[in-house]
Amino acid sequence: MAKHINKIKELLNILNIDAALIKSKTIKKYLDTVTGSGIHLFITKDKSYAILDGRYVEEVKEKESDFEIIENTPAKSQKSHFDIINNIMNEHNYKVLGIEASAYSITDYEKLKNYNFSVFLIEEELNEVRILKDKHEIDVIKKACKITDDIFSKVLKHIKVGVSEREINAWIQYYSLISGANKMSFDTIVTSGPRTALPHGRPTDRKINSNEPIMIDFGIEYENYQSDMTRMIFIGEPSEEIKNIYETVKRAQKAGVDAIKTGALSRDVDKVARDIIINAGYGEYYNHGLGHGIGIGDGAEQPYLNQSSNVILKDNMIMSCEPGIYIPGLGGVRIEDDVLIKDGIGVPLNNTTKEMIILEK
Amino acid sequence: MAKHINKIKELLNILNIDAALIKSKTIKKYLDTVTGSGIHLFITKDKSYAILDGRYVEEVKEKESDFEIIENTPAKSQKSHFDIINNIMNEHNYKVLGIEASAYSITDYEKLKNYNFSVFLIEEELNEVRILKDKHEIDVIKKACKITDDIFSKVLKHIKVGVSEREINAWIQYYSLISGANKMSFDTIVTSGPRTALPHGRPTDRKINSNEPIMIDFGIEYENYQSDMTRMIFIGEPSEEIKNIYETVKRAQKAGVDAIKTGALSRDVDKVARDIIINAGYGEYYNHGLGHGIGIGDGAEQPYLNQSSNVILKDNMIMSCEPGIYIPGLGGVRIEDDVLIKDGIGVPLNNTTKEMIILEK
Repeated sequence: MAKHINKIKELLNILNIDAALIKSKTIKKYLDTVTGSGIHLFITKDKSYAILDGRYVEEVKEKESDFEIIENTPAKSQKSHFDIINNIMNEHNYKVLGIEASAYSITDYEKLKNYNFSVFLIEEELNEVRILKDKHEIDVIKKACKITDDIFSKVLKHIKVGVSEREINAWIQYYSLISGANKMSFDTIVTSGPRTALPHGRPTDRKINSNEPIMIDFGIEYENYQSDMTRMIFIGEPSEEIKNIYETVKRAQKAGVDAIKTGALSRDVDKVARDIIINAGYGEYYNHGLGHGIGIGDGAEQPYLNQSSNVILKDNMIMSCEPGIYIPGLGGVRIEDDVLIKDGIGVPLNNTTKEMIILEK
Repeated sequence: MAKHINKIKELLNILNIDAALIKSKTIKKYLDTVTGSGIHLFITKDKSYAILDGRYVEEVKEKESDFEIIENTPAKSQKSHFDIINNIMNEHNYKVLGIEASAYSITDYEKLKNYNFSVFLIEEELNEVRILKDKHEIDVIKKACKITDDIFSKVLKHIKVGVSEREINAWIQYYSLISGANKMSFDTIVTSGPRTALPHGRPTDRKINSNEPIMIDFGIEYENYQSDMTRMIFIGEPSEEIKNIYETVKRAQKAGVDAIKTGALSRDVDKVARDIIINAGYGEYYNHGLGHGIGIGDGAEQPYLNQSSNVILKDNMIMSCEPGIYIPGLGGVRIEDDVLIKDGIGVPLNNTTKEMIILEK
């Protein structure tokens, strides 16, 4: 993605550094390169290089175009990729190398200090570069959300009394993979009954009963971009208390979506949804933020919507909106959509209903 | 696992450090604790602590026993877990803190330098501690391998002409998850036809033809431990050349297993198998090591079997044995078992046949 490389080059300029060394899968996906661990991207003010060992040459030849390929198999050349970078830095009289602080190990960092350039730690800046999505990214995420809706509707047919959380999880993965997902975007959450009070419970052998909440929170990785959706399912109607919790969360979620607008401050959006839950008397049972950015993901996607975040929202940002109430011993409810800001307004990208899904017994 | 904590405490002694700070999922699994990112294990010469934020308290209470729980939610306490560690270090007059060099970020490392203890980087030593498996670990890995055999036999029923690599992958994941796997131990490899020449090809929409090689390399994570197995499948007999390659790899794999013995040097085991492939004229098409340790995994499991590794093998080590030949344009063959050294001898833990699996057209 030449456009994305240019954003990294702009960042070099803003940070006043000569080059950036990239190792994370996240940024490799952003730049649409091969993501193997033996590939290091070295982007300078003037040029971009992919330094890689022999294993990747065939694969990379088919894919890269924005990068000059430097083949280096350390076992043969007796040179690390740092040595190669050092040569280029010296040749061009570059003084400052930025590295991804979260991707490089302390051991690498110590090694880099032995060269005659200085090292600058790039932290959140690389995630911030990715916050505004371009048309291609928006199209891919929309498609991922549509596939996610389809997978969910197929999985619904397998949800019956006596089926285990584990089996539901297995069907989610099956339909995700045959539908074109490369993988799940995170460990799928399938919980039932009182276990729904765990915000991030993993599937177990517990079998589904009637009249209890079932929580499914899953997402797929599709062409490098992720989806993320949570819905609740019931086999027969649940208790009045769970219904009341459901309606409260639904109102909070809707209010959150409505508050996602160009110009809004992220923590104010969190507050709008949170206040509804607090005013309904459930404040102490809602212990996480309202949402996080949707994109390549990997746990580091801007913007976050929580009580302390302070991003001014803009058109072409995409974020989840996922309030929840979790009462230990009783159960929990969360409803989550991915929301794109388009023409100033938050538009949910998921089409699965947010009304209570009550299957027949 | 109290026994495993004791191994870490022995390591403190060997490295002459006062305490170790653990963040990786790998070592958390080894110590059988909750693995969330907000949990930090702090093991001193005298005591073991789990420092965690409010989200984990309920989950941890049910599980931990070897650790004293210190609840710290930084947003409330205004203290990082480093501050808490610093207090304990000072209180006991501890001078040197070991940290997992591969798990902590450079940013964390820089922060730790501001405290008045010194920081020691623990590198491979933590992986080396895990190299000898105890009875419980061996039992779990044996079970994981048995489940892996069962999954493979179920998946075989879905392999037909016209089915895509992607569909086969979806069935592997489905059967793995319903069979008790927590997740796949790595990205499953399903390739067919000429794509089998990619040692680590990911499944695509390519549909299976008759008379061509199909490579399946997968493993499950079961109760924190991994399995890893590769087998080739054919629908109708392949070409004479592929048969010849198959028989060569099979001989090399068997020779490798036979060479895995107490007292053997790891690189000598690699050589035994490699020489068979070289002598058959395929040396240039075998471009990876013979094997790697099997255990918690996550890409850092000793012992490695390759041309430069120098571990003396011992009873209760478990490692893969997986030679391969990959000819661009034609295809590839790999056969892989997990091998336990018991009473001095290498014992494959997989029971799936290593004869050619030829399905009817």
